[in-house]
Amino acid sequence: MIRAGIVGGAGYIGGELLRMLLGHPEVEVAAATSTRLSGRRVDGSHPNLRGLTDLSYVAPEQLPECDVLFFTASSLDDPAGRAELAARGKVVFDLSADLRLKDPALYRKHYGREHPVPELLADAVSGLPELHRESLRTADLVSVPGCMASASILALNPLAAAGLIESRVTVDGRVGSSGSGASAGEMNLHSERSNVLRVFAPLGHRHQAEISQATGLEALMTATGVDAVRGVQVVIRATARPGVTEAAIRAAYRTAYAAEPFVRVVAQKRGNYRFPEPKLLLGSNYCDVGFAYDAASRELLVIGALDNLVKGGAGNAVQSMNIRMGWDERTALGFPGLHPI
Amino acid sequence: MIRAGIVGGAGYIGGELLRMLLGHPEVEVAAATSTRLSGRRVDGSHPNLRGLTDLSYVAPEQLPECDVLFFTASSLDDPAGRAELAARGKVVFDLSADLRLKDPALYRKHYGREHPVPELLADAVSGLPELHRESLRTADLVSVPGCMASASILALNPLAAAGLIESRVTVDGRVGSSGSGASAGEMNLHSERSNVLRVFAPLGHRHQAEISQATGLEALMTATGVDAVRGVQVVIRATARPGVTEAAIRAAYRTAYAAEPFVRVVAQKRGNYRFPEPKLLLGSNYCDVGFAYDAASRELLVIGALDNLVKGGAGNAVQSMNIRMGWDERTALGFPGLHPI
Amino acid sequence: MIRAGIVGGAGYIGGELLRMLLGHPEVEVAAATSTRLSGRRVDGSHPNLRGLTDLSYVAPEQLPECDVLFFTASSLDDPAGRAELAARGKVVFDLSADLRLKDPALYRKHYGREHPVPELLADAVSGLPELHRESLRTADLVSVPGCMASASILALNPLAAAGLIESRVTVDGRVGSSGSGASAGEMNLHSERSNVLRVFAPLGHRHQAEISQATGLEALMTATGVDAVRGVQVVIRATARPGVTEAAIRAAYRTAYAAEPFVRVVAQKRGNYRFPEPKLLLGSNYCDVGFAYDAASRELLVIGALDNLVKGGAGNAVQSMNIRMGWDERTALGFPGLHPI
Amino acid sequence: MIRAGIVGGAGYIGGELLRMLLGHPEVEVAAATSTRLSGRRVDGSHPNLRGLTDLSYVAPEQLPECDVLFFTASSLDDPAGRAELAARGKVVFDLSADLRLKDPALYRKHYGREHPVPELLADAVSGLPELHRESLRTADLVSVPGCMASASILALNPLAAAGLIESRVTVDGRVGSSGSGASAGEMNLHSERSNVLRVFAPLGHRHQAEISQATGLEALMTATGVDAVRGVQVVIRATARPGVTEAAIRAAYRTAYAAEPFVRVVAQKRGNYRFPEPKLLLGSNYCDVGFAYDAASRELLVIGALDNLVKGGAGNAVQSMNIRMGWDERTALGFPGLHPI
Repeated sequence: MIRAGIVGGAGYIGGELLRMLLGHPEVEVAAATSTRLSGRRVDGSHPNLRGLTDLSYVAPEQLPECDVLFFTASSLDDPAGRAELAARGKVVFDLSADLRLKDPALYRKHYGREHPVPELLADAVSGLPELHRESLRTADLVSVPGCMASASILALNPLAAAGLIESRVTVDGRVGSSGSGASAGEMNLHSERSNVLRVFAPLGHRHQAEISQATGLEALMTATGVDAVRGVQVVIRATARPGVTEAAIRAAYRTAYAAEPFVRVVAQKRGNYRFPEPKLLLGSNYCDVGFAYDAASRELLVIGALDNLVKGGAGNAVQSMNIRMGWDERTALGFPGLHPI
Repeated sequence: MIRAGIVGGAGYIGGELLRMLLGHPEVEVAAATSTRLSGRRVDGSHPNLRGLTDLSYVAPEQLPECDVLFFTASSLDDPAGRAELAARGKVVFDLSADLRLKDPALYRKHYGREHPVPELLADAVSGLPELHRESLRTADLVSVPGCMASASILALNPLAAAGLIESRVTVDGRVGSSGSGASAGEMNLHSERSNVLRVFAPLGHRHQAEISQATGLEALMTATGVDAVRGVQVVIRATARPGVTEAAIRAAYRTAYAAEPFVRVVAQKRGNYRFPEPKLLLGSNYCDVGFAYDAASRELLVIGALDNLVKGGAGNAVQSMNIRMGWDERTALGFPGLHPI
Repeated sequence: MIRAGIVGGAGYIGGELLRMLLGHPEVEVAAATSTRLSGRRVDGSHPNLRGLTDLSYVAPEQLPECDVLFFTASSLDDPAGRAELAARGKVVFDLSADLRLKDPALYRKHYGREHPVPELLADAVSGLPELHRESLRTADLVSVPGCMASASILALNPLAAAGLIESRVTVDGRVGSSGSGASAGEMNLHSERSNVLRVFAPLGHRHQAEISQATGLEALMTATGVDAVRGVQVVIRATARPGVTEAAIRAAYRTAYAAEPFVRVVAQKRGNYRFPEPKLLLGSNYCDVGFAYDAASRELLVIGALDNLVKGGAGNAVQSMNIRMGWDERTALGFPGLHPI
Repeated sequence: MIRAGIVGGAGYIGGELLRMLLGHPEVEVAAATSTRLSGRRVDGSHPNLRGLTDLSYVAPEQLPECDVLFFTASSLDDPAGRAELAARGKVVFDLSADLRLKDPALYRKHYGREHPVPELLADAVSGLPELHRESLRTADLVSVPGCMASASILALNPLAAAGLIESRVTVDGRVGSSGSGASAGEMNLHSERSNVLRVFAPLGHRHQAEISQATGLEALMTATGVDAVRGVQVVIRATARPGVTEAAIRAAYRTAYAAEPFVRVVAQKRGNYRFPEPKLLLGSNYCDVGFAYDAASRELLVIGALDNLVKGGAGNAVQSMNIRMGWDERTALGFPGLHPI
């Protein structure tokens, strides 16, 4: 058993980390911190954990030494304090946006401020196992990518790596309300956020820089909030290079993902669930990817889906931890999702 | 044209008052106040009104003299200031809970505080036209009842008045999130409030006192928040008196409501919409009432439905105003609701 | 008073026609036909109309002579019978897809069959008042465009007409379940259709031909079913021509729509409802259009929204009828939509 | 490893049985039958199982000998054929309504027909482990109770057994659309079933007989369909016997359920999730029970919640199988549910 700590355990990503780690046979949850809820039971804020744990939050300064540490929030407000906390863990998983972009200039452009911890960028390995599994085996600092970025990268990378598509793609991301976090303002009230198709990022969503960094493609991204709590779907338009066949596209996905435990290729000719559908993935660590292709016009539609809090966050972190520790990487990630739902 | 003012125009009830009054051929909206949004356009907070008005909010102290005044919030915080504002209108419609209970002791029991304006209670007429139409023709102070109370009273009163049921009834109210208002806390976040069946008032909901006051019945009330923005449904269990037939029940409703423009009796033997269904009433001023009866056991289920912001609030106020002014009481209340929805 | 008939009154478009025509001061509904429900009350299938009418469906062969006739279904199955019925009306509004594409070859390509009534194509005027108002004043055969096509055309046409954008645009349509009609199969079961982001037309949706025909642009269209009953939103990526400014785009919309009663330009810098949002339009005849533009890259996002059964169907038909008859074209179309919802 | 067969694998209960059994370390799924889909892959109808199995449906006559057999549908249509199939399993779990009521006369009253297999009633053990664990250890025929009945019995039985409540209770059941099954008619279309509060059983719902049989109480039951795919909540009004304290009620629950792995008592004074909330239980085998009590009036509200396809169906069957086979009864039932959702 190793000891795990969660810094920022009261948010939605914290809750999913707790759910998975409490069910992990190799892990003991040593502590979950919350400044606001210190001393309160974790199942007060995560009621699905009732009966599974008697743990209560501790203040950050009470964080004990741990083998692995998960940070759910940015170090922006207090980089020094964060560094001190991070030193209490041998391996650190950062689920904030801090370390996703390798280039501090790009960070500045997309986040509108100086990078808080540029000195950490060189050592951070991206917590996307499908692309970085070998590096993860020895990483001591892992940066888990953004939810829409993860879906887009997994959907696009086999095609980009095989040289099957032109560089410029357009990404239409659709996302549920849990992406806005557990503390949020009037725009996330049920009466306002229900039934929406809210184009909240019409042009230039931040995740497009992550997608470009990972795939080498130019990505133009739009994002819409939909009436769901969990779930991300990306619908991507691309143009295939001349001569590319549907078989070549399918082969590229098969080559990339045949051995992957958490990526499925979903591209059927008929049925209610022909393409990746996020509702089927709630609570699961799958990312489903699929496509439709018209060879005559070379129009290609690529689709990805995942649960933003699992494969788009906490699940990627746990899968990365499993790899880092040398365990079966599926451990504690076995829930396949539900149908109907 | 008469001049209407709305004190507290930025909330959800304020928005519905604006929608109806802007479409009312006899009314000019002279002002809508908002302390927080003074100077801002009303269609900023009520985006459905874009293109219908260029009105901006004014501060309460800028409220001009009006023929009719609508108050959407309690006078609790500042009874003196409220009285001064109220003096600027010839007829006042109060949509808060202040004047709903006639007995200040009952108010104290249910609201846990002293009544802020007991001196107003004697003159206030209840803004439920089906029960108080004659009094409303000359009323200068009208108190609009609560949304679940209105549905329950309209569903129960014909039976109570005709002496068809035993006194004790149990009321199960189901209500959407707009009942919590436009400013609300973490419990109303989309991620928390979606998909709920939240029993927020297990026993003794306040509206039971209003129901008892109006019908003379002892009412025990439970309330559940459901995953809807608008809409109230009450499902009421009662026991018929010995010998009561289904025909007698139906006749009591027919007698009470045959001439009512905004109450429909919905009690069919089959179909998808056999009983009152709030989704069909969104935006409309209808209250649908219905029942199912088993003569052998004398079990009686009574059901009522309405839009909490319309017939459960702003629509009742406008209908009362129409009566008070001697106009066709359906004026500006013609929207029948949608199907499918 | 003129006499109106609805052929195919039991479907969702038929229900909306009934709602509007029953509230129209110049129109008497002479008959609504239904083969399956002949003899049954119309408020049995359209429960929102309870209390508004005692009308029952008649069989098609019982259709009386009318001044205006609305057809909600294709003439495909029985062109001769349809022609005979159509002869009973002086002015015909066709809400099927039959007459939307002017070129029978294009129809064949997109619908996979020969055109059923090519002889009607020359006389049919498109029931999109914003583009064809003058022709509608004298039209005796009006073809109401598709719901996603209407939204896209209204969003794109001012820019296309002013020469502000490059030809190729990509259209991402999102649509609720009512677009599949009142009789539908297992894929539309609540348990299957709830919570979906169902990419049902990944490439080459039929409406793209209508968009191209109306705007002269090459349109590539994808369509996704979302968890809504009503509502269409189109999110369109375009590229502005060199030198185009945001002011020029805004001016093109203003010029086109300043005098239009049912198109609003919604493009704000902040707020929860910065861009067109279909939920605000349920039951209303508005089409909201908006955009976001990045002059440096010339990336342009254009957004349109409407209620597929109203401005995307029955509302356009009624507005066209109002124009044809010389009435105020807003008659019976005054409901502005709701907030919150 | 034992061999399990599912007769009727293509429905929603069949899908949940497959999900659990495919993840069960002691069970091999030998066959799942479907008359309609024989030869087709099971992940075609249960898309959440993609990647977990290559199984295809077989026709019922191809059902092999099994150690355990699960029947998801009634034997009504073909009792002889059913008996022949049942003979291919050593232990049979019946998830239909056939064997839930012990008295054939009661069956006749509630189901309106003669009992199809009265000869099986004597041997059938109820698959509700909390009440029948000892009998289940040796049962060869297990009848899984109805979803709303399970929730009600688990919520009421500790109080009934301890003699804390008067006999007559009223049960208000709320249920999602998956309870209507995977093949369903127009009333379950998304456009009709969305947003409903549909009182489909106003008086005398069938499950009330099961509740009475198990608890000895007289139960009067109403049922409402709500806008959810999964989930059951029962809200029960009861009257405590004179002198009963809140502490006594809490003690009764604690005594009954302290050692139960799948029943949690949820009855808090504050919080968003004070009482049992079905959305937190989707996919989990928990039944949460709770209560609110006013000692002065002896009014008692009892609340139960579960996932109708899991603890209200397939999960109860698997838990019963685990008990019957002598395994840890939590095996394959570890998923705790999600928050937020």
